[in-house]
Amino acid sequence: MLGIVTVDDVIDALVEESTEDVQRFGGMEALDAPYMEIGFVEMIKKRAGWLCALFLSEMLTATAMQRFQGEIEHAAVLAMFIPLVMSSGGNSGSQATSLVIRALALQELKLRDWWRIAVRELPTGLVLGSILGVIGFTRIVLWQNLHIFSYGPHYLPLAVAVGFSLVGIVAFGSLAGSMLPFLLKRIGFDPASASAPFVATLVDVTGLVIYFSVAFLVLHGTLL
Amino acid sequence: MLGIVTVDDVIDALVEESTEDVQRFGGMEALDAPYMEIGFVEMIKKRAGWLCALFLSEMLTATAMQRFQGEIEHAAVLAMFIPLVMSSGGNSGSQATSLVIRALALQELKLRDWWRIAVRELPTGLVLGSILGVIGFTRIVLWQNLHIFSYGPHYLPLAVAVGFSLVGIVAFGSLAGSMLPFLLKRIGFDPASASAPFVATLVDVTGLVIYFSVAFLVLHGTLL
Repeated sequence: MLGIVTVDDVIDALVEESTEDVQRFGGMEALDAPYMEIGFVEMIKKRAGWLCALFLSEMLTATAMQRFQGEIEHAAVLAMFIPLVMSSGGNSGSQATSLVIRALALQELKLRDWWRIAVRELPTGLVLGSILGVIGFTRIVLWQNLHIFSYGPHYLPLAVAVGFSLVGIVAFGSLAGSMLPFLLKRIGFDPASASAPFVATLVDVTGLVIYFSVAFLVLHGTLL
Repeated sequence: MLGIVTVDDVIDALVEESTEDVQRFGGMEALDAPYMEIGFVEMIKKRAGWLCALFLSEMLTATAMQRFQGEIEHAAVLAMFIPLVMSSGGNSGSQATSLVIRALALQELKLRDWWRIAVRELPTGLVLGSILGVIGFTRIVLWQNLHIFSYGPHYLPLAVAVGFSLVGIVAFGSLAGSMLPFLLKRIGFDPASASAPFVATLVDVTGLVIYFSVAFLVLHGTLL
């Protein structure tokens, strides 16, 4: 009987662990109890901490946008694609993070393997970014030529800027998302603290800077 | 020996299941093999599908932004807070989704319990949104009065608009994020397909509409 109880315990522990993993990857403290048994105030406490930390970090996007206010005033059409290009970086980063968190948890990867992941994630991100870049470019050119929406006379360099910035943002997202769990582990934190919202927040600010930098390079002399 | 093998199998299956859960919550198809054993092309295939689906859905943000181009041209300062308010909805939604996915997987919740979650998530979201709203309001008023950045003469209604839209967006994010797994289950899909990037994408478009609607109401006659 002793053996059977131990096995049950192991299974209970595994199920509990994976519940914690999913909740933490969702960007909150683990609940440690079923949803319906947690009190209202306790629930707020478990969620507000990370939500506020993410909000304060995300404020850097407002700071970054202040720098580019001139560009936005000059070409409001640029602002239109901010959510689209920014979210793509967060999405690819979230994929990479979930892969690495799990591989570290299962000890398929050690801390010293970080560079092996980096040299895989960078080309993976470049290919994924190119796929999205082509879709983004095509969408702008199509919408313009089918007269669904007019992005103005400089729609072609605009489409090029959106396309190329997607390559850069998705590649950066994959790389940053895969390195974050290693970095957390290196400085003594649990790599599973690297939640999807955490990665998205990290990538959002850089994504904005990449987008406006590429736009400035491509659109200088035409739209900007 | 037979018993021991079965227990090992159960544990292996549990570990494999939770690896799949984490990867799918990260917004991709489960790998079914260790990270370093997957070929490059296979890796692209596992990630590109969801990434493209999310990208195509997120294009609705560009469509929504086209509608608000007049407002942005009139008040570029509004664009500055788009990433901040939008991401907060995705973050709170991601928390709610991870909670419900896990509670459904552990059968703590049944499909018919959706309304019990809805009546909990709405007030939870309103409180969390109010916390972020107060921080956002304070940040704008502080930055203006400490002369860190000037948001113009109408900074106070701007701060009010950002604050109130955060309440609405975080509440909507929590509600939508918690309902998505139920909805997927209802129409025959695995509720665990509701990944963090999926929820963020869903909430982004509505978040934009909420932000610009609140801004229009509050800033009509001053900034707009």
